[in-house]
Amino acid sequence: MIIPGFRFAATAAGLKKTGAPDLALMVADEPAAAAGVFTANLVKAAPVVLSQERLRGGHAQAILVNAGNANACTGPEGLADARESARGAAELLMIPERLVLPASTGVIGQPLPLAKIKQALPKLTARLNPKGFQEAAQAIMTTDTRPKTALLRETIGGKVVTLAGMAKGSGMIHPDLATLLVFIFTDAAATPKVLKTLLKRALPVSFNRITVDGDTSTNDTVLFLAGGRAGNPAITVDGPAMAALGEMLNQVMGDLASQVVADAEGARHQFRVEVRGAATAAEARKAAVTVALSPLVKTAMAGEDVNWGRIMAALGRSGARFDPEQVEIAYGDVLVAQKGRGLGPAAEARAQKVIQAGAFTLTIDLNNGEFSDYYETCDYTEDYIRINASYRS
Amino acid sequence: MIIPGFRFAATAAGLKKTGAPDLALMVADEPAAAAGVFTANLVKAAPVVLSQERLRGGHAQAILVNAGNANACTGPEGLADARESARGAAELLMIPERLVLPASTGVIGQPLPLAKIKQALPKLTARLNPKGFQEAAQAIMTTDTRPKTALLRETIGGKVVTLAGMAKGSGMIHPDLATLLVFIFTDAAATPKVLKTLLKRALPVSFNRITVDGDTSTNDTVLFLAGGRAGNPAITVDGPAMAALGEMLNQVMGDLASQVVADAEGARHQFRVEVRGAATAAEARKAAVTVALSPLVKTAMAGEDVNWGRIMAALGRSGARFDPEQVEIAYGDVLVAQKGRGLGPAAEARAQKVIQAGAFTLTIDLNNGEFSDYYETCDYTEDYIRINASYRS
Repeated sequence: MIIPGFRFAATAAGLKKTGAPDLALMVADEPAAAAGVFTANLVKAAPVVLSQERLRGGHAQAILVNAGNANACTGPEGLADARESARGAAELLMIPERLVLPASTGVIGQPLPLAKIKQALPKLTARLNPKGFQEAAQAIMTTDTRPKTALLRETIGGKVVTLAGMAKGSGMIHPDLATLLVFIFTDAAATPKVLKTLLKRALPVSFNRITVDGDTSTNDTVLFLAGGRAGNPAITVDGPAMAALGEMLNQVMGDLASQVVADAEGARHQFRVEVRGAATAAEARKAAVTVALSPLVKTAMAGEDVNWGRIMAALGRSGARFDPEQVEIAYGDVLVAQKGRGLGPAAEARAQKVIQAGAFTLTIDLNNGEFSDYYETCDYTEDYIRINASYRS
Repeated sequence: MIIPGFRFAATAAGLKKTGAPDLALMVADEPAAAAGVFTANLVKAAPVVLSQERLRGGHAQAILVNAGNANACTGPEGLADARESARGAAELLMIPERLVLPASTGVIGQPLPLAKIKQALPKLTARLNPKGFQEAAQAIMTTDTRPKTALLRETIGGKVVTLAGMAKGSGMIHPDLATLLVFIFTDAAATPKVLKTLLKRALPVSFNRITVDGDTSTNDTVLFLAGGRAGNPAITVDGPAMAALGEMLNQVMGDLASQVVADAEGARHQFRVEVRGAATAAEARKAAVTVALSPLVKTAMAGEDVNWGRIMAALGRSGARFDPEQVEIAYGDVLVAQKGRGLGPAAEARAQKVIQAGAFTLTIDLNNGEFSDYYETCDYTEDYIRINASYRS
């Protein structure tokens, strides 16, 4: 996975107890147009505060990411630590400090091990190379079981444009504006304002439509850097080129979002809750997210139990208006409830086979209007509990 | 547990696969003043619809409860079944049909086994006796591991008044207006309007302050019958007697609510989330319920991990306004975070001992105002998943 004009590296700084790589650096050859979206959580990690501030300039050249420590709830010292680690990278890269964006993920409320990071920086910088994308994606993982990456190439403005992204995230997943750590790179030329607009358009079809546990992280960060090496006429206004770049971004971010749900902590089944026939757009979303978050729906999926009654119960508390006796529910293509009532054991047996396949769409028709929306989610298994009961030990 | 003027009975009608008692009858010697509160879920079970309708008359003489089938999402047939089972009891009791209130709990979306219930009614009616309270409380259980009852005796208007209640509930617990199945009986004399007022006052200090999994049931029902056998001057208006009865009700309902949380599906730790220093009452409640519902907070408690960073993250997404650097968090008496930052491993080690005790208060001070509120909740364990993944199998 090569994105012309960008280099990547990873190393082990000793932040993960396992000794696995936990520090990643992503560098553009020249200052790149840049935009970002960040967690809506009132409690924001220090690197989130700093990166938000630095992005006001519209450009960035490097992203320094550590896994194993969130640098959140760490006060002014945490902010100083984030600044200091970024400064260390800037010095080695010989670029202005304000062009380095820090990002962190891991345990909340513990001081950032700054000394370990600073000690690892020379080795990290020396490893930078155009082929380092995959190893960087590996280093930013925490409870993830596999790296999440996506890459697209398309022709825009007569030039081949590459757009690639990486994401980490497996628990504390309920994005609101942004999510997790997501880094997107393109060699297309575009203004920071175009990048920001495209990011905002991509969220409602990607990270703002997934949930694992309803817990919004303090560190959610999506960064998008455009280096310009592709040589396309710089994208500055809405038009076919911006639409084409936006379509690439939607696809890469949607793909990464699905990968996050598929690798959710302990998950064995992945499903898309598709709500149709809602009276308003807001009600469609509320209905979808309430079903997607219901512990009873999610545990039924873990047990491969076609317990559609729990879906009705979740819909009923969602705030969406509907007539319970008009609701239709289908697992994949198998309708199990119509006019709010069950179609019987034979239908449920066929629907169970749909669940057993491991990934499917749950379609709910409220029959109360024209609006639809969706959320992607997963089941709740004993392993989710195990992973999160023992996370720090 | 004897409440003068009331008789109780239970029997096995064959609705529970285990063959355990699953049908209960609760009867007042004379028509009693009655009030109820019911689920706020838009999807309401048939017995909820019927009991709500019948309570408009302000009086009731019998409650017929089955466990094992919720009679929810069962359409007009479900309503007819609820009516028919109540009619069967009324005939045997030789009382007007409209004085019988049905209640159901169990699987949603399957037809009520009416024939089994009707067949069991004669035996059930024959068993009615003043000492049957405990066996009725046992029969209404589903995933509960133990019956939940409470009884108080106080002097009101110069007479000894008894007030007793029973509750069932272990999962699908996130009351909103009411919860689960709760039946309260008193031999005090009071008007239906007084009973309704007292119920509404008791909810914010009992069932509307507990949560297990955020899933509001379709069958939540709280019924309150006052027989009048105590001989006190009938309570008709607000005053010392009404306040005294209200205090008894608050205590019994608060006690039953705590018992529900203590017997929550798979729970090993029970805790009260107490939020102080919020800017508004609504924000105090939002902060408390968000922490109480956070899967990451609840799994950390299962692991006896003093992961207060997850509490900060939950507070930050709760919608409450505060300065993260002014927050204080204590487990029991042990302060672990001050000014939004951790007090270190020694404090956390002491706090872990508090969790290990099994029941404790988590106190959060937002330091942003004068309002406080609380929720009682429990941890999320592997057993919650196991119980709910296999509920119908």
